[in-house]
Parts: sequence; C-alpha cells; structure tokens
Amino acid sequence: MRADVLAIGTELLLGQIVDTNSSWIGEQLAAVGIDTMEHRKVGDNLGRMVAAMRAMLDAADAVVVCGGIGPTQDDVTRDAIAELMGVELERREELVEHIASLFGTRGRDMPQNNLRQADVPRGADVIPNPIGTAPGIRAEIGAKVIYAVPGVPYEMQLMVKEHVLPDLLARSGEAAVIVSRSLKTWGASESGLAEMIADEVEMQVNPTIAFLARGIEGIVVRLTAKAGTTEAAWALIEPAEARLREILGDLVFAVDDETMEHAVLTRLEARGWSLGVAESLTGGLIGARIANVPGASRTFRGSVASYATEVKRSVLGVTAEQVVGKESAGQMAQGAQRVLDADVGIAATGVAGPDEQDGQPVGTVWFALALPGLPVEAVSTRLPGDRERIRQFSTISLLNILRMRLDALP
Amino acid sequence: MRADVLAIGTELLLGQIVDTNSSWIGEQLAAVGIDTMEHRKVGDNLGRMVAAMRAMLDAADAVVVCGGIGPTQDDVTRDAIAELMGVELERREELVEHIASLFGTRGRDMPQNNLRQADVPRGADVIPNPIGTAPGIRAEIGAKVIYAVPGVPYEMQLMVKEHVLPDLLARSGEAAVIVSRSLKTWGASESGLAEMIADEVEMQVNPTIAFLARGIEGIVVRLTAKAGTTEAAWALIEPAEARLREILGDLVFAVDDETMEHAVLTRLEARGWSLGVAESLTGGLIGARIANVPGASRTFRGSVASYATEVKRSVLGVTAEQVVGKESAGQMAQGAQRVLDADVGIAATGVAGPDEQDGQPVGTVWFALALPGLPVEAVSTRLPGDRERIRQFSTISLLNILRMRLDALP
Repeated sequence: MRADVLAIGTELLLGQIVDTNSSWIGEQLAAVGIDTMEHRKVGDNLGRMVAAMRAMLDAADAVVVCGGIGPTQDDVTRDAIAELMGVELERREELVEHIASLFGTRGRDMPQNNLRQADVPRGADVIPNPIGTAPGIRAEIGAKVIYAVPGVPYEMQLMVKEHVLPDLLARSGEAAVIVSRSLKTWGASESGLAEMIADEVEMQVNPTIAFLARGIEGIVVRLTAKAGTTEAAWALIEPAEARLREILGDLVFAVDDETMEHAVLTRLEARGWSLGVAESLTGGLIGARIANVPGASRTFRGSVASYATEVKRSVLGVTAEQVVGKESAGQMAQGAQRVLDADVGIAATGVAGPDEQDGQPVGTVWFALALPGLPVEAVSTRLPGDRERIRQFSTISLLNILRMRLDALP
Repeated sequence: MRADVLAIGTELLLGQIVDTNSSWIGEQLAAVGIDTMEHRKVGDNLGRMVAAMRAMLDAADAVVVCGGIGPTQDDVTRDAIAELMGVELERREELVEHIASLFGTRGRDMPQNNLRQADVPRGADVIPNPIGTAPGIRAEIGAKVIYAVPGVPYEMQLMVKEHVLPDLLARSGEAAVIVSRSLKTWGASESGLAEMIADEVEMQVNPTIAFLARGIEGIVVRLTAKAGTTEAAWALIEPAEARLREILGDLVFAVDDETMEHAVLTRLEARGWSLGVAESLTGGLIGARIANVPGASRTFRGSVASYATEVKRSVLGVTAEQVVGKESAGQMAQGAQRVLDADVGIAATGVAGPDEQDGQPVGTVWFALALPGLPVEAVSTRLPGDRERIRQFSTISLLNILRMRLDALP
C-alpha cells in the first residue's frame, strides 16, 4: 500500500506558511507501515490541482489532499475531485445543518460562502469534522482512493487518525485500530538508545518501534500497534512498553503529551512541596517553562534571574567569589529557597557565550538542588552548541536533574 | 520565468525533518518576481528522483533541487542529474582540493566518501560552496536549467541568494542584483498596515512590497529591489523605505535581523541605563528574551518572576490588594528598580488563564514602566488567545512599550 500526500495552497509555495501537514501525515503513515514516496505542493489552481491528483493517483494507491476545502472562492479541492471523478457537486442537506449548527453555537451569522462546504462530488463519501465546518471527502477513483482533509492542522490530524489511517489499513487488509505510546527520554543519544534496545528493535513487528528526535524536548521512543480493537491494540503495547521501560529506566521522563516541567510539578505536588528557582545564564527561561503549565501556581513560587553578579550577591546572598562554580550554584539554590520562601530551591549558573567568563569555557554550567532537610547538592556539565542551545539545554537539564532526584527520594 | 522546487530526502517523507527549504526558496523566488507553481519531495531513490526531475522540467523553466549532495552512498542527486543529461560523472581536481583543504583546516582526516562530492556530471557547472564540502551543480537540459543545492539550510540559502537567483534573473533578461530591507512592525494588523500604505503598494514595481506575518515577532513589511549593481538596487530601496517609514512611524521597531529585545537594549545602552524586570504571568519570559541578546550583561541586571502573590509582597514590596492592577504593576516596576538596583524597572502582571483571577477575565494584562526621575506609568490591555499566546504577547508588548517610551524622551 502506497499513499502520497498533496498539500494545497498558494501561500505554501510562496513560503508564507511552512507545510508541516505533509510531514505529520508521512510520519503517521510510516508508523502503521504504509509507504509514502512523493509529496507535492500546488497552489489554489483548479487545473494544476487536477493534474497533480491524476499523476499522483497513477503512481500511488491513495492520495491524501490537505487544504483547499475552506469556504472561500479559491478553495477548489471539492471541484478538483469532482472533475477527476467526472461528476457534479451536490449540496448535502445534513452538512448544511451541521455547518449552520456550528455557527449557531458560536452565536454568529453564517456567511453564505460557508454553504460551499456542504457541496460534495456526487458519489463521494463525507468524512465528518466534529470540530470545524469543513467536512472531509473520500472518493473512489477506479481501484484507487483520494481523501481530502482540512489544512488546519488540528482538524486534519483528528480526521487522519480517526478516518484516513483506519480506512487505508482496512483497504490493505490490515487491522484497522492503531494506538501508540510515546516514551519521552532525556539523557541518552539516539544511537545510545538504539544500542540499549537493539534486541527489542530487532524483533519489532507489531508494535513497531521508532525514534523521534525532538531537539530540546529529548528523544521519543514511540511504540505503535495495530489490532482489530482498541483493547487488543493496547494489549500489544503493554508488554512491549514494560520491557522498554525496564531497559530505559529513569531515562524516560514522561509519556505521550506530558512535558518535563509537568513531570517535575506533578512530583513536587505529590509531596506538597513548593518550588523556587534561581537562574543566571537562562535569564528566566526555567521559570518561564515551569509557569507554562496550567495550575503551576499551586507549586511554583517564582524565579530570580540574577543576571548581574551584584544581584546574585544582594538578592540571593551569594558570597562565593567565582559566580560560575559549585559553591555559587549551591548558594543560589539556597537563596531561592529562602528569598522565595520555597520548600525546594534549584539553580543554574554558567557560561552561555559568545565569550568565556572567569577563565571558564563557553558551555560550562553548574546546577544545584536544595531539598528540605538535605545538604545542598551541585553538579556541573559542559554543554555543546550556541548561546541559545546552551540556555535551552541548561533549562531542561536542571529540570531533569530535579525529577531524577525526587524519584530517588524515599 | 517559472522555477519549481524539488526537495530530496527519505527523512522528509517520513516526517523526521520538516522541509522548510522549499518554503524559503519559494519566498525568495516570489520576492524577485519568479513564478513557482509546484514543489515536490521524493526520497533518496535514483529512479524516482530522475522521474520527478524530468516531469518538473517539462512544466517549469527551471528546477531547484535541495539535498542529496552529501558524501554518503544514499546521496545520489549528482547521479540523477548525470542520468538526466545522459552523461557520466567526472571527478574535478579543484573540488578535491577544496574539500581536502576544508578537512585540513578543521584538523580531521577526510573520509574517502567525501571525494564523491568532487564528482560532477560532465558538462555541468559547479556552484561554489564557501562554507561546506558540498559544491552545488548547475546543469543545462535543453533550454531548461536545473540547480542542485545542499539540504543544509544555511549553505543552501547562501548558494540560492548568491548564485541561483541572480542566474535565474539573468536568464529571464532581468537585472541580476537583488537587495531587500525588512521593516519590522508591532502594533498594527496586516490589514491595518495594508490600508496605511495602500498607495505605496498600489504603485509598487521595483522595489516590490510584501507583508510577512511573523506571529509574536510582529509583521514585516519587506522591500525587494532588483538592479544591475548593488548600489543601484539600494538606491531604489532608499526613497521607498523613507516614504514607508514616514507613514509607519513608530510602528517600525527594527530592521532586518534586529529583534525587539535588541532594539530595547540598544536604546538603553545609548543612555547608559541598566534594566531590571518584574514579571508575573510571564514567569521569566521577559528576562529570558532580553538575556538572549549577546552582550545583554552590559545593560540587563536581572528579573524577578514573582509568580506567587507573597513573593510580589516580600521581594518586590507590592502592597496593592489586587495583584493584577495599575497600582500593583507600578509597585512591581519600582520594586524591580530597587531590588535589582536598576535605572529602569519594567513590569507585567496579568491573567494568562485558563481561569480568571480576582474577577478579572483571562487576557487582562497590566504593564508598568519606572524610568529615572519620572513618575511610574502603567497601562493595561486585553490580549486574545490561549495561555501561551497571552504570555508571549505580554512579553513583546511590554518591550515595545518601553521602546516607544524611550524614543519619546528628550
């Protein structure tokens, strides 16, 4: 089974928007074992759309078309599919009602243009859109099939997951329910992870195992299983996940959509501990990331970004002479605890560059943790990359150190 | 003149990397008035690459191929072009020397694989790569032309700007030097800007005027001019830029690569003033953004992210009962001035959501400025969007308010 992807939109060609949809679809197709060999982008032009669809259907078993099903005059994906099928568009009453009801709930008058979205090529099937006005379309073209899905990423993703992938799998004679579990890791390289779980990767069939590099969010090990029912698919995931977790241990910091900062706040909240941060090279990034979690106010007291040395001394009480060092980092963590009246204080101080500082090379970073009733602890590392990368890696590294330390407590 | 884009790489189809190169090239082509009507992605497969190149050259006057010119066995763009031309690859001695010298300067042994990058289809031209080992290729195919450029964005961009675009313009009989100037604006919508400069847009020929929406970085008004020489191109830009600046006034916060935080720091440094920040809903974002500028330490003292109400009181000395309000914002700015020993204190406090706070709706934000020898000033706004967007917009809005206030000082 081969499914290719066609993204529609003049704004994509002109670089006003980057086409991330076809990458996302390609990733989903690969996860369930469907080949994808060519992706194209064309503008909102009926003739070129029809020509691209025709050529792509010649080469592939299926084509997923993203975009061009909005309400405006230049949204002509519906018309292109009708032309490809050699049929007319017909207005579907149930879609008119769905669209009108969406406008009703939102308390707005419906522009007449939106009724265009109720037009479907005669003989084609409608793919429901529970969260938007643009229904999707599935059209059989001989032995091949074409799907039209919205360009709005969230609507597109829901439709592809719930309708397009199961339909493609059913056509290829495969089990039609897909579930996946992402184990988010921090602290090992992709090749290191691959070596650790080489035996599992070697014998993977269902679930499949994939590595997804997420930059400063770490590396994801993703399990994807196919089965006849959701329960059966999860029953395939569970033992494989358990084996991977046993091997990966505390490299796994979160699953699926959970973030590092969420993982940290959950652990602190379970102990009833509040958190204060003292930062230097990160300038506020650590606090900003923690504050991004809704409900952070239950745990997060605040952060002191002591960029100037005198602020480290006057606000946080740092007396160590060298401000990038073990003693200074520890005093910063204790300062955060005291000044912000927090149970737990954490700190990062280092050299983000471009210039070295106090004779210490760019990338040198010290992290410290002050936990209730325990002596302050500090570790150092040497981070690669440019200023921005050093600051981002410092942020997630410190949060990860805190997570592992909390897990190691009785 | 029509130039289409072909991106090469199996990792692009599988969604391991998002193809941003073709968007970037599309934007550049549009800026100089060259049409681009179809972009494709194919994997590292010789047969499919040749087929795609052939089909695309049928439809367009030129094709820009990105990627597949690295040193590994699966980099076969060179071979694909040779096959398309019906010629053999030949090793170019000057390229062998260039590649070896790059390895020499970097003090590493050269893997023999890298010599593959010295192979060029017989009869094709080499496009120099001053910053990497992968030379580009230009090949005439009948009356059409194909360019191969690296997939590494920075190397690709340099090659496209310096060689591909001028060559395409020369072929279309147009002036071959292109320069552009980006006026970065904050505070007006795209339609608002379009209305303000409608007359300029109406009469645009050379330079052209384009709007680029950059999300939390505002909206860019970009002028692009073509001429026979760099001097002549700038001479076209200058009067047009002057007219736009007169109309846009202080909406323009920076030009080209300058950022808002850089604009603010430059103004403060010119007055010899240091900066301290007090934040609440942003949790550290404002400080983090300022600290991202190399050399920020000359001006930036630090930031207190007082997330908990008690921290606003104990650290910053806020006495106002309502923590999201005019009085509280003002006291935070003065607290930042005092606690961080800064000449200028700025503050933001507001409701990022998801829940309202003290009866104030999500999106309510107060900003305050404390400047040397002046009474503290505060303004409020109501920002749209979700939690993340409200926090990001608060950050840039506060920096912009400070920029405009500094410009208004004698």
